[in-house]
Amino acid sequence: MPIAQREAEIVWEGSLARGSGSLTSGTRVLDGSPVTWAARTEAPDGKTSPEELIAAAHASCFAMALSLVLGQANATPEQLVVRAVCTLDEVAGAPRITRSSLEVHARGSELAEAVFADAVDEASRLCPVSNALTGNVEIDVEATLEGSEAKTPEVVGT
Amino acid sequence: MPIAQREAEIVWEGSLARGSGSLTSGTRVLDGSPVTWAARTEAPDGKTSPEELIAAAHASCFAMALSLVLGQANATPEQLVVRAVCTLDEVAGAPRITRSSLEVHARGSELAEAVFADAVDEASRLCPVSNALTGNVEIDVEATLEGSEAKTPEVVGT
Repeated sequence: MPIAQREAEIVWEGSLARGSGSLTSGTRVLDGSPVTWAARTEAPDGKTSPEELIAAAHASCFAMALSLVLGQANATPEQLVVRAVCTLDEVAGAPRITRSSLEVHARGSELAEAVFADAVDEASRLCPVSNALTGNVEIDVEATLEGSEAKTPEVVGT
Repeated sequence: MPIAQREAEIVWEGSLARGSGSLTSGTRVLDGSPVTWAARTEAPDGKTSPEELIAAAHASCFAMALSLVLGQANATPEQLVVRAVCTLDEVAGAPRITRSSLEVHARGSELAEAVFADAVDEASRLCPVSNALTGNVEIDVEATLEGSEAKTPEVVGT
């Protein structure tokens, strides 16, 4: 039996350009959220989109992974803030999700910079959403210990 | 300039097991949605999760792709319903997103079965979320023309 299965459904009516869809989800959190192609690719106008949902999935998954790794190092911070930006771009004439950029801030931790950088690397390897996207979507992680001026790019030390 | 960039942020406080996170998103649709490890892996208890968000992203993205392809064939149906189930499972001791299963129903179309099956195949190749997950996550698509008894598994004819 898997750890978890979660579901969502969309009812779409009309063409891509002029139609619209309405989401529901197992927990009801997304119920009634409208989506349209125009909101996805032009002004969002308060409507969510596949890219916003991927960003939310990635941010929340990475925060959990980093929380686990820091906890295992007895260095749970007061607060982790993870912001994800998901990019839809045209590749060879077709729309593709090309990048997910994560910006991580850890606050209220006594961690040494080097330990924190290792933890970010380890979280990147562990995060299930990072693993689901890797190879298809460029992932970059910029992580900062609050109160420190130094930034710790994920690519260093991997 | 990319087609679109969409963002979301989580503020996480506490350990993985006992802490919790609160989401916000660019459109505010997800604002204040709580996430926890327990809700992600045990009973959801009304809380969304990375897997539910991936399911919503995949369902909505695939519906748009299929709507486009059917429209290009002058066969826009009255309604498309796409349900996605996203599975988190343990692989080699770590949690992984292993599968995204799509169940597609097209209603009110005069399409021939074979044309519809081809359109589903084409949507699978086009869908940006499918392309973001492919190779890392098993994707299966079961598509049905409403009123028809025949089911058209995605794997046939690809």
